[in-house]
Amino acid sequence: MHAEPAVVVPTKQRYSLARVLDHWYIACASHELGSKPLARTIFDTPLVLFRSDNGPVTLLDRCAHRNVPLSLGRVEKQHLVCGYHGWAFDGAGQCQQVPALCSEQTGKARRVPAFATREQQGFIWVYMRPDVQPEVQPFEFPHVDSPGYGTVRHTMDFRGTLHATLENILDVPHTAFLHRGFFRGVTRNRITVKVQRGPDRVEAEYLGEPVPTGVMGRILAPQGGTVGHYDRFIMPSVAQVEYQLGAKNHIMISSALTPIRDFETRLHAVATFRTVFPAPILKAVLTPIGKHVLKQDYDMLSKQTDAVQHFGGEQYVHTDVDVLGAHILRLLKRAERGEGPFADTETFETELLA
Amino acid sequence: MHAEPAVVVPTKQRYSLARVLDHWYIACASHELGSKPLARTIFDTPLVLFRSDNGPVTLLDRCAHRNVPLSLGRVEKQHLVCGYHGWAFDGAGQCQQVPALCSEQTGKARRVPAFATREQQGFIWVYMRPDVQPEVQPFEFPHVDSPGYGTVRHTMDFRGTLHATLENILDVPHTAFLHRGFFRGVTRNRITVKVQRGPDRVEAEYLGEPVPTGVMGRILAPQGGTVGHYDRFIMPSVAQVEYQLGAKNHIMISSALTPIRDFETRLHAVATFRTVFPAPILKAVLTPIGKHVLKQDYDMLSKQTDAVQHFGGEQYVHTDVDVLGAHILRLLKRAERGEGPFADTETFETELLA
Amino acid sequence: MHAEPAVVVPTKQRYSLARVLDHWYIACASHELGSKPLARTIFDTPLVLFRSDNGPVTLLDRCAHRNVPLSLGRVEKQHLVCGYHGWAFDGAGQCQQVPALCSEQTGKARRVPAFATREQQGFIWVYMRPDVQPEVQPFEFPHVDSPGYGTVRHTMDFRGTLHATLENILDVPHTAFLHRGFFRGVTRNRITVKVQRGPDRVEAEYLGEPVPTGVMGRILAPQGGTVGHYDRFIMPSVAQVEYQLGAKNHIMISSALTPIRDFETRLHAVATFRTVFPAPILKAVLTPIGKHVLKQDYDMLSKQTDAVQHFGGEQYVHTDVDVLGAHILRLLKRAERGEGPFADTETFETELLA
Repeated sequence: MHAEPAVVVPTKQRYSLARVLDHWYIACASHELGSKPLARTIFDTPLVLFRSDNGPVTLLDRCAHRNVPLSLGRVEKQHLVCGYHGWAFDGAGQCQQVPALCSEQTGKARRVPAFATREQQGFIWVYMRPDVQPEVQPFEFPHVDSPGYGTVRHTMDFRGTLHATLENILDVPHTAFLHRGFFRGVTRNRITVKVQRGPDRVEAEYLGEPVPTGVMGRILAPQGGTVGHYDRFIMPSVAQVEYQLGAKNHIMISSALTPIRDFETRLHAVATFRTVFPAPILKAVLTPIGKHVLKQDYDMLSKQTDAVQHFGGEQYVHTDVDVLGAHILRLLKRAERGEGPFADTETFETELLA
Repeated sequence: MHAEPAVVVPTKQRYSLARVLDHWYIACASHELGSKPLARTIFDTPLVLFRSDNGPVTLLDRCAHRNVPLSLGRVEKQHLVCGYHGWAFDGAGQCQQVPALCSEQTGKARRVPAFATREQQGFIWVYMRPDVQPEVQPFEFPHVDSPGYGTVRHTMDFRGTLHATLENILDVPHTAFLHRGFFRGVTRNRITVKVQRGPDRVEAEYLGEPVPTGVMGRILAPQGGTVGHYDRFIMPSVAQVEYQLGAKNHIMISSALTPIRDFETRLHAVATFRTVFPAPILKAVLTPIGKHVLKQDYDMLSKQTDAVQHFGGEQYVHTDVDVLGAHILRLLKRAERGEGPFADTETFETELLA
Repeated sequence: MHAEPAVVVPTKQRYSLARVLDHWYIACASHELGSKPLARTIFDTPLVLFRSDNGPVTLLDRCAHRNVPLSLGRVEKQHLVCGYHGWAFDGAGQCQQVPALCSEQTGKARRVPAFATREQQGFIWVYMRPDVQPEVQPFEFPHVDSPGYGTVRHTMDFRGTLHATLENILDVPHTAFLHRGFFRGVTRNRITVKVQRGPDRVEAEYLGEPVPTGVMGRILAPQGGTVGHYDRFIMPSVAQVEYQLGAKNHIMISSALTPIRDFETRLHAVATFRTVFPAPILKAVLTPIGKHVLKQDYDMLSKQTDAVQHFGGEQYVHTDVDVLGAHILRLLKRAERGEGPFADTETFETELLA
């Protein structure tokens, strides 16, 4: 980031950052964690995961002794053994053995922070407040096991804050512009947006949206019809886009984001869908389109990140059609301050051309 | 730069930096700006240039909405259109259209800073104080269109402050040493230097200088004779070297520098000359020599910059023969503080061996 | 290093750093310094060495005039001449000539700091407090010229603090783990360690240590026997390991470390030995093992350094078997504060399994 103040155009040193530790984030896919320790980073904090008989374990990836990464070590008898001096840590982060030591082995100071860990639907989730028993549950991807639904998973990293990435995924106006031709055609329609902010989420419902005239629309609903369309943010890091095209097509793309560090965010997208097309054909058609669209978003977020870092802060202007971004930030900031979910629900309505 | 203080040899954290915003700098050559937006950086500030029917326009290269670079967008109907959400900015930086918005389009907050822009003698100049009507004019290169004069243009970047680059260009003593053999021979001559500091410039006149005995001298004045030699700094960033060898040879090399950022400076040199030699022959002979000399200066300035950054500041000693550097810094610092040009003129005299 | 505080696991911004300037460090091997100036860095301070008739000279590698590195210049008539303007410095750092200057040449301000320099046993040592006559002597490597002793020299750089590198070299417990199979076998022995901290050193004597069962032991003492084993730290930066295997084998490995900068340390190891094997055979056998062991230590120190820098500080836990590290840091910190050597001697005893 910028050491010197910007002399020509001063900018407030402020970013849309919120680090909500009291919640769950995906550390890795289940298949990535085998018999060896695995290093991952969340909130710029090095973690090491390993499997014990009681399920996956997550510890701070820093030996209590001389601070080398425990992920360089190995798993032996349910313990994670450091590669430097052989200190052996159990699933609670307590050191159970110091090989060279004649005196007692389990000094209280000899421990590393441990993070609650859960394996669910093929992902391993970590609760980012260390040494705490979580009161909330990890997000569950909908329809993963529902009959008649196909599933596609995709993981990729964005160079952008958690907030910028969430806003990008749930933003409608940019699709007509950055992704011109994929989602929307030339004709613009006046669409009513109903926004409902609940205790731990905010949802935008798009009313009166015609079937998209872009490539996507022609594939999924060649005969037209009406569309049900919802964009949702669910705390702390899920962006969900839901489409209902006629009675027969239902698509949900749920993206659970992991903040690797302030300006780097990993996306774990799970698309679950039931369409008139057989799932394999739909996959074959939509996968290259999806990759192209994600690449465009990746590039734009990277350039946005370069710019805000160069200026030393964000200087955004908001309009009526930036429907979710500000609500998302309020939810995140509130949780970061430890204030708990909102007690009430608020509803807003606006219109946009798309 | 250095985070830690230097423990062995403490150095004051001070650099010869001055950022004079109330003046003109070259952003690019005219031929570089076509129908697409062009990104340039001055004073570490990203700018975007584009052509409108009213001439070239310069805006801050940061969309008012989500801060992505406008230079990623395109020019449509006299407007610069952002590539993310399609916001369209006019030549004054005012947003004239937000495609997704149903309500009014031209909110006052939706604007980006605009910089006065002038196209002149094949260069596009930008006034670096945004949203201001300049009271001064850009520098005019002399003799560009004078009959009998040839012109050579050369652009290159130095890794050094504006001040260090100016001082290097206008410094005589280093030519005998760093460029040994090119400008001066083995014999040293005692030369009187008359320094005159005016309101917005400082000039050194070298009296009694014989024709140089190096390569340059032998080419331009094989029969010897006297020399008229002036080195000039003209606010805010022009270094000018003028030679008159006998009645028939007149050479002016005017370098308009652009401070890209604190330690990176772009040189736009325009050499205009009238000599006994035909211009094409002179160009053919002097171009490789000029490149060699500039490479030597480039390397030395880079090493100087590495050193002052490593130590966290400059720790210079000045002597009588560093004739212009201190005056240049005073002029720049005064203008940076907004005090306007000096009211008086001062004259100094010294001697040097060269 | 880390700009932002670590939010998940806060860490004190504290490192085991001590910069003892009032002592000698190896700048280079004698054969590296020929007729050209040589650039070296110690304590992050650029130095330039050159040879004069009075022996090697070390100056700050920064010209007093415009701060370019003097190491870009050349040696002429006992002076180091800067490549930019030709200022010529003598062995005391005083400028004796400014070529362009008509007035007096040896202004007092025109000097660069000079460092006491000593050539000894094939190394050039520099005293890191500038412009001071040292009261202490550089370390002398033992047995370099003793009859019957072979010598091997090895130089390499570690990415770690001086303290972390010293502790690693003198640490016994990690050898059984990181270097498993090389030094020690599977059977662990209870060994008594006698630690004696003197005025300017600390020594660990290992009592009752059997001949190592690893590769090293089998090579040097195939028939077993008892071992004399001492690990020593000698101010400010020598780590010495001494082994006596039976009457006939005596090995001393003395490592004089040079702190290039806070997290980069150069090792100059001199092994002197008298063994039942002819020296060339021992060298041939032990060199590849030594390289492998050093590579393992290099990798581990690098990872440790990454980790402490990432967290913004060290957060170590100490045990009874970390026998020398804390004493070394106390000696270094005391000397950094200029308090001089300890007046007394302390003795401690502990036990470890190795």
